[in-house]
Amino acid sequence: MEPIKQFELSKEYLESLQLGIEQGDNDFIQESLEGVNVADIAAILDELELHEVTYVLRLLEKQLAADILIELDQATLTKVLREFENSEIAEWIVLMDSDDGADILNLMSDKDREDVIAEFQDRVKSEQILELLRYEEDTAGGIMAKEFIRANKNWNIVQTINEIRRQAENVEKIFSIYVVNNRQQLLGRVSLKKIILAASDTRIEDIYEEDVISVPVTMDQEEVAAVMRKYDLESVPVVNVKNKLVGRITVDDILDVVQEEADEDIQAMAGVSADIEESDSVFTISKARLPWLLIGVMGGLMGAKIIGFFEDGLSKYLALASFIPLVAATGGNVGIQASSLIVQSLASKSAFDDTPFQRFVKGLFVALLNGLVLGAFVFCVVVFLYGFEPIFGITVGFALFCVVLLASFMGTVTPIVLNRFGINPAIASGPFITTTNDLLGLAVYFGVAMLLLKL
Amino acid sequence: MEPIKQFELSKEYLESLQLGIEQGDNDFIQESLEGVNVADIAAILDELELHEVTYVLRLLEKQLAADILIELDQATLTKVLREFENSEIAEWIVLMDSDDGADILNLMSDKDREDVIAEFQDRVKSEQILELLRYEEDTAGGIMAKEFIRANKNWNIVQTINEIRRQAENVEKIFSIYVVNNRQQLLGRVSLKKIILAASDTRIEDIYEEDVISVPVTMDQEEVAAVMRKYDLESVPVVNVKNKLVGRITVDDILDVVQEEADEDIQAMAGVSADIEESDSVFTISKARLPWLLIGVMGGLMGAKIIGFFEDGLSKYLALASFIPLVAATGGNVGIQASSLIVQSLASKSAFDDTPFQRFVKGLFVALLNGLVLGAFVFCVVVFLYGFEPIFGITVGFALFCVVLLASFMGTVTPIVLNRFGINPAIASGPFITTTNDLLGLAVYFGVAMLLLKL
Repeated sequence: MEPIKQFELSKEYLESLQLGIEQGDNDFIQESLEGVNVADIAAILDELELHEVTYVLRLLEKQLAADILIELDQATLTKVLREFENSEIAEWIVLMDSDDGADILNLMSDKDREDVIAEFQDRVKSEQILELLRYEEDTAGGIMAKEFIRANKNWNIVQTINEIRRQAENVEKIFSIYVVNNRQQLLGRVSLKKIILAASDTRIEDIYEEDVISVPVTMDQEEVAAVMRKYDLESVPVVNVKNKLVGRITVDDILDVVQEEADEDIQAMAGVSADIEESDSVFTISKARLPWLLIGVMGGLMGAKIIGFFEDGLSKYLALASFIPLVAATGGNVGIQASSLIVQSLASKSAFDDTPFQRFVKGLFVALLNGLVLGAFVFCVVVFLYGFEPIFGITVGFALFCVVLLASFMGTVTPIVLNRFGINPAIASGPFITTTNDLLGLAVYFGVAMLLLKL
Repeated sequence: MEPIKQFELSKEYLESLQLGIEQGDNDFIQESLEGVNVADIAAILDELELHEVTYVLRLLEKQLAADILIELDQATLTKVLREFENSEIAEWIVLMDSDDGADILNLMSDKDREDVIAEFQDRVKSEQILELLRYEEDTAGGIMAKEFIRANKNWNIVQTINEIRRQAENVEKIFSIYVVNNRQQLLGRVSLKKIILAASDTRIEDIYEEDVISVPVTMDQEEVAAVMRKYDLESVPVVNVKNKLVGRITVDDILDVVQEEADEDIQAMAGVSADIEESDSVFTISKARLPWLLIGVMGGLMGAKIIGFFEDGLSKYLALASFIPLVAATGGNVGIQASSLIVQSLASKSAFDDTPFQRFVKGLFVALLNGLVLGAFVFCVVVFLYGFEPIFGITVGFALFCVVLLASFMGTVTPIVLNRFGINPAIASGPFITTTNDLLGLAVYFGVAMLLLKL
């Protein structure tokens, strides 16, 4: 019993496919890929050499090749597109949903894009895609498709079913039928279930639901994801400023958005600058990581200058050096905690959110509480367990308390400021801010020590 | 023009609602909530005091209250459930989809759960929910619903439409109709579109698609999310070991899974132990953060011991202290980068993934490359810009190189080991590992210094 009917992506098959390509055994290639899900075929092609991918794509039927193309890794896809004539790409794009076609065109250079569009044979599709290309890529307009079923409120069930029949080939998945007036303005929705269960002469006007949730073309894709998630929508109609129905977003695209945004945040927190995968080359991975590491190293080198500045004091009280990692690490940890909470609340904003001032006050109280607990704990360990004199325990404990306050403040303010400037606030939890907090922490630590230990 | 038809969740309305509750103005409450989306009503109730929430829920029609209940914040929901009699809760649960009912029962104590189940009037629903409660919460069985449309392969279109009519009230959203044989084993699926377009005497057998993707009841919910995302599914049938169709998972639940898993990873990386929100109290937030901060602080205190151990050497070569933050921060940054890449690849595993050995070798090369670049850079700055003697520059540079190698190794191995033991590997990018790397880094740094500087 094999419950998931999923193509077995084995290394053995991969090797036999490569052998088939090398030997030009077209029958074997076509037969072995027959009936396999396009997502699985794409996963196989992602593992092949470029010339092997193009060989297979040329061999397959055009519609199948087009379906596979949109499932390829972006890196593979970009390389594959360069291998084909613009006329061939145009033929494929016409066979795709408009949103997928627009995505492919967005990967090409301006010149190639224009050439491909000039080759389009299908006037309707070409107009649809040209419209989609006008919207920003990460807005509702940029991710919506032009393929959806629309019914005029004056139609009856028979007319609506005829429209479904007419569009059946273009619109693969039908979730809801959107109801519009004569000016194409969105009025509501009616489910396929209702269409099936209604009598043939029922008018759409009499059965459609008015409380349809739609999104404007300009809405950010993250916000669209939040709306669809909140209202449990499987698809959402997109309207322009005049409430005219212009497109539809389905939840499978939104699932990708949610995953991509989460991956982006995690990469930002980890200080990895490009979208890299484990399968990338050593050099690519190294290059994506080095910039943030260098920022951290430069911060460390500046830290050395700060400590060097206090060298006199340090030589008189050598134990100060021992607690440098404690102060630096705590500053970093507190900063990341504070910023990650703000980042999450920025992502799911609601009308009842705290104001910036309330956030600030609450963050201050949390920091005061945590700073007191940690400072007191460290004082006790330093004095009673490690046997240092009380004034030194007070110095380390109080410095830690100040660092917790400061790092918490930085962790709260930085993501809010970044967000206001349109920068992904998650980088506030990354190496850059950790490094800044380290430096501030060092300055505070030695400053407090100079004062309290009278160095 | 208001493109999103969404209830205006204003603070003004919230206040007028609270006034309405205080004055017992039931007409105002019911009228103002009429036609409002249940997700919006739930968002409002989340902001009210407990006695206000229960007042509103008692006032509303049972089906509406049940729909609102499942949209409430988990914290609010748990409190609300304690305020109602088990018989009242049972009435609500029978009105819910089985998966939502099971979720609610899972929030209750064993005793209350049994009492509520004993109160069920609807035998079918109670059997369905009892079945769902048997599965682990984060598996396909734990998130699936028992509400779906199933057609026997021998039925014709009319029989199928009759089944849809019969189930119309139970199954709110129909995406596909699942086709089974007489033993209820899953054979395939047929879309509503096909049902609408087919002639009434067409037999299901002749139009259904065989290549349906299903998931086993035991599959982890994260894997279910990966399958649905890969194959762009809006719903997926769930089967038992005998391939018997036992449930259905819809993509709106999966959207929540993807978001929750991402939030969990980010919280693990940020070192926040519980699922907290910005609206929680100062004390709750503080309590969720303190444990990881304490681990960091204890690490720092151990670091102090390590440095204290090398105090003699440090007193002879005070500049060593200056570069402690550099070494510690770089170790932390390298460790987080390495582990976050592994965590991402663990989440999206495929048959073509590198083996653990290949991962290890590749990680080693990336670390060698980055370690060389950073070590050489630091050597140059320390010697040529800061004017230290070359042997000291070699010491700091070489120590940094070793720390990069070591931290990279730890960052690669730790998530793999955690994952094997069933622990969320994302905590490998959190404070615990950063702290461990700090300590190892300190030991390596002073060890190298002792050797090279002959202290």
